[in-house]
Amino acid sequence: MTYCVAIAVEEGLVFCSDSRTSAGMDQVSSYSKMHRFGIDGERQFVLLTSGNLGTTQAVIARLKRDIETGESVSLNTVGHMVEAADYLGEVSLTQQRRHEGEAARFEASFIIGGQIRGAPPELYLVYPEGNHITTSDGTPYLQIGESKYGKPILDRILERRTPLETAALCALVSMDSTMRSNLTVGPPIELLLYRRDALAINDYHRFDEDSEYLRELKRAWHSRLKTAFKRLPPINWAPGWDRSGDEQNEVS
Amino acid sequence: MTYCVAIAVEEGLVFCSDSRTSAGMDQVSSYSKMHRFGIDGERQFVLLTSGNLGTTQAVIARLKRDIETGESVSLNTVGHMVEAADYLGEVSLTQQRRHEGEAARFEASFIIGGQIRGAPPELYLVYPEGNHITTSDGTPYLQIGESKYGKPILDRILERRTPLETAALCALVSMDSTMRSNLTVGPPIELLLYRRDALAINDYHRFDEDSEYLRELKRAWHSRLKTAFKRLPPINWAPGWDRSGDEQNEVS
Repeated sequence: MTYCVAIAVEEGLVFCSDSRTSAGMDQVSSYSKMHRFGIDGERQFVLLTSGNLGTTQAVIARLKRDIETGESVSLNTVGHMVEAADYLGEVSLTQQRRHEGEAARFEASFIIGGQIRGAPPELYLVYPEGNHITTSDGTPYLQIGESKYGKPILDRILERRTPLETAALCALVSMDSTMRSNLTVGPPIELLLYRRDALAINDYHRFDEDSEYLRELKRAWHSRLKTAFKRLPPINWAPGWDRSGDEQNEVS
Repeated sequence: MTYCVAIAVEEGLVFCSDSRTSAGMDQVSSYSKMHRFGIDGERQFVLLTSGNLGTTQAVIARLKRDIETGESVSLNTVGHMVEAADYLGEVSLTQQRRHEGEAARFEASFIIGGQIRGAPPELYLVYPEGNHITTSDGTPYLQIGESKYGKPILDRILERRTPLETAALCALVSMDSTMRSNLTVGPPIELLLYRRDALAINDYHRFDEDSEYLRELKRAWHSRLKTAFKRLPPINWAPGWDRSGDEQNEVS
């Protein structure tokens, strides 16, 4: 499995991905799921990948080749972020269809984000069917892979006005909750920050399994969450509280 | 969808369930998913249900009828909690098979917990296939339905030594996280506490949509979680942090 999250705030974009791939519990490997394309000062794209590794590798290879061979449509030629998402959707569908007859499915999902000079930064989630969605003010993030464990913290913290570094921290906490609950999501964790209008990657970090910062973050979040929980108001037993009574047994 | 969680700590058992059922987004109803059976002073059972409403209603009806008609095997006759789980699994399979030929599936999952005099309190999760699992010291809880959103807080807080009231609060917080992220899980929320060796239900509460306590808990947890997040150590940009550099673009 995979967990990738990308966030679009006013200050820019955050991308965060795990690196674990598995074909069964005893065939676990580590592959980067974060891929960067672009021309500094003109356009920047970051891709996060989820799903069949054969498909995602073939898609990334095709995106590179289209740039190298100077195809009329490539990440170097698209005029808008939404065209990049359309193009990615088509490439993904083409790769999936190469194995269509077989019994297994070779689906893949992608997040593509970035900025093309003259337009604002944007994020798109490209579904296996090739269609896509973007963020909204109410939901300034997109997730692919094992998304549920890490969703509550994103919902609570993120707004468009959230500072870029805070959004990055929130992505790491979301990743931590996911790794805690799902063995198939694991380090190295990649984190990338893109600042609006920079048209170059601003910050990138790869946290390895033995990252001291990641361990400290994990420990700090765990202990602060427990403290927060301890300070909750105790259950209000008073109003309407039924301490047993006649109705307690449906059959007795 | 549904979210139900049950917790087994040293002091006893906690059961918590939502009440929303849906057959599509425009056919949303409210049904209790918590059912109680037992004989005070001798045996107590609590069932939580998830899945096809036709199946779960048929199963509950059958459990009641088996007690009323004095069948040789019923919740009033089983000698151990594990036998209650076996019996529930068989009843569930029988009900599901009544509609087997059809295209749709009528699966249901159950949590059954309680205590029979002379034995310790126990919890079982009965799968649609009729087999079951119980809790462990490492995982003192069981969930059915939409379980992922509410899992991280359970993993962080619960141990066997957790006091019963704390476990109940944790169940409510887990429910709150789930309701926040999934529209198909909703109030009324039912909460039931069973104290070890009581052989009667100790506390039961139903929190309606407009419950002031639930609203206060939701507000308090949200604000404390945000405070906890704000106090996290900022991202450590120093060691190994790559502020751009030659490798930043795979193709440029």
